Amino acid sequence: MLALLAGVSPHLAAVEARMGRVLASRQPRVQTLIDGLLPFHGKMLRPALLLLTAEACGGVRDPHIGYGAALELIHTATLIHDDLIDDADLRRGKTTAHVRHGNTSAVLLGDYLYTHAFDLAAGIGDLRALQRLTATTNTICAGELHQQLAARDLDCTEAEYDAIIYAKTAALFVLAAQAPALLGNASESARQSMADYGRAIGLAFQIVDDVLDYVGDPAKIGKPSGGDLRQGLITLPLIRYIEMHPGDPEVGVLLAKKDGNHPLIATLIEKVRHSSAIQAALDEARGWVEQAQRALECLPLSIYTQALSDLTVTIVERAM
Amino acid sequence: MLALLAGVSPHLAAVEARMGRVLASRQPRVQTLIDGLLPFHGKMLRPALLLLTAEACGGVRDPHIGYGAALELIHTATLIHDDLIDDADLRRGKTTAHVRHGNTSAVLLGDYLYTHAFDLAAGIGDLRALQRLTATTNTICAGELHQQLAARDLDCTEAEYDAIIYAKTAALFVLAAQAPALLGNASESARQSMADYGRAIGLAFQIVDDVLDYVGDPAKIGKPSGGDLRQGLITLPLIRYIEMHPGDPEVGVLLAKKDGNHPLIATLIEKVRHSSAIQAALDEARGWVEQAQRALECLPLSIYTQALSDLTVTIVERAM
Repeated sequence: MLALLAGVSPHLAAVEARMGRVLASRQPRVQTLIDGLLPFHGKMLRPALLLLTAEACGGVRDPHIGYGAALELIHTATLIHDDLIDDADLRRGKTTAHVRHGNTSAVLLGDYLYTHAFDLAAGIGDLRALQRLTATTNTICAGELHQQLAARDLDCTEAEYDAIIYAKTAALFVLAAQAPALLGNASESARQSMADYGRAIGLAFQIVDDVLDYVGDPAKIGKPSGGDLRQGLITLPLIRYIEMHPGDPEVGVLLAKKDGNHPLIATLIEKVRHSSAIQAALDEARGWVEQAQRALECLPLSIYTQALSDLTVTIVERAM
Repeated sequence: MLALLAGVSPHLAAVEARMGRVLASRQPRVQTLIDGLLPFHGKMLRPALLLLTAEACGGVRDPHIGYGAALELIHTATLIHDDLIDDADLRRGKTTAHVRHGNTSAVLLGDYLYTHAFDLAAGIGDLRALQRLTATTNTICAGELHQQLAARDLDCTEAEYDAIIYAKTAALFVLAAQAPALLGNASESARQSMADYGRAIGLAFQIVDDVLDYVGDPAKIGKPSGGDLRQGLITLPLIRYIEMHPGDPEVGVLLAKKDGNHPLIATLIEKVRHSSAIQAALDEARGWVEQAQRALECLPLSIYTQALSDLTVTIVERAM
């Protein structure tokens, strides 16, 4: 994936520097905690998508750097709170914030990142772009809540799953892809196309993430597999597995036990992993990749639109 | 305190209604959780202060209602995360959100309130007022983090305590008192006076809160006493007690044990409670009350400025 982002890597470095500057605290105790957060940085996919879109639409300007930093701060805040909720020990192969700094600091650190993201975005001075950021973050938080409240409930339909992954993941991709249009003077049709692209790549990304939770190599994805099922989260691979095995009462019984360490959970994870539910879910992700590529057709061809197109393929291929 | 707020009670009802409207979710599972939050509402002190100030400065307009609702949402979010961090079972005599809905929902519910507060404030359409809200929320989160990181450290100076209570409590009172000036066309000197008022009443409020944590009647304050010391938080009563008993090594040894249930903790709480440290801390709060009243002198005398003045006295009297 890194090669695809080479065209915007100096800008990505600027986004990272902006994040560090925004989070800086004059209070030494707080600064030490923030410094401990820095190795947490991931692949910066959302700012990268924003920057590629900006280049594809006429070039990167300073508001794009700030807005990209705000998106990544929001994303990092959700990860810190997610890991705390899931009690996950590892993220990207590193110990998570709540394991390193304690649950208390993890709750407050997430809050600190959220509010600094909004403050940074407010500083850009574009009210409409700021309103889109606050509305999108609402959607993300509602999606996270929805996911937790729907856990272990086999009445959670595929429509609910779709709504959850749109809210918790795709909405932020939509905003990343649309941000250059929002911050500039793009036509209504260009703005809509970029929203379609963001939605499609976001949904593909989350479905692949949910597939990797079953089939991914723990060493490669940086966390143990089967975590979603252990937490009672009903994702697309499980939904497809249940459809294909309507007579199997085991799933409902196991979920109702609320015991992620139950020995039969490991058996069920293996069954899903080796079933055709995995391919069925990946086919769905591939469908979204095609839609993402079609949405790009409205942009003039350049190395940047090519990178945006290749990115969609890379996202699904990481599960192969 | 309620009698003081009678003049703005219809506006307070409008603030409460706005909060309910903003938090409403089309997702039934999320809405059920939000409904469970409603009995959580407290005395709405921050919106009340904003509304009284608005009336004192020329009248309440719709942006004041929205901004007041945003302030109360921010405040409620910090309480939910605070109670989770402190593992407090009771708040205002009712079971806390994480006890009723679980830690996971409490983390996400707090996030949901934060982001909805920003979204509501963004909808008012005043970029400067929104920037002050995001900056103030940054300050609050940094203050909460600072407080946790300074816990159990007897090197935590009084200057650090002052910085912590300004950030975690007084900053939001400053914004509440200044909001009508921010949302209107007040003079620079009026804006500064209201900031001084908010700072002074906020500091008095937090010092009294910290005193009540030692001497308050659990039935009246709605939570057990001594909680701060049990969590290792070094507040003004303890700072004054240590100054007055420089030879007592017990405090440092006890804090280092990190055991809030240690039998000697109860003994130390009793010692602080019956020492003159309590009066010394209350004297400090009274000093801030006088400063708050002086800051009000710039406003034309009305029933609203009188209520703002009386409010400062009521805040300290609740500890008597």
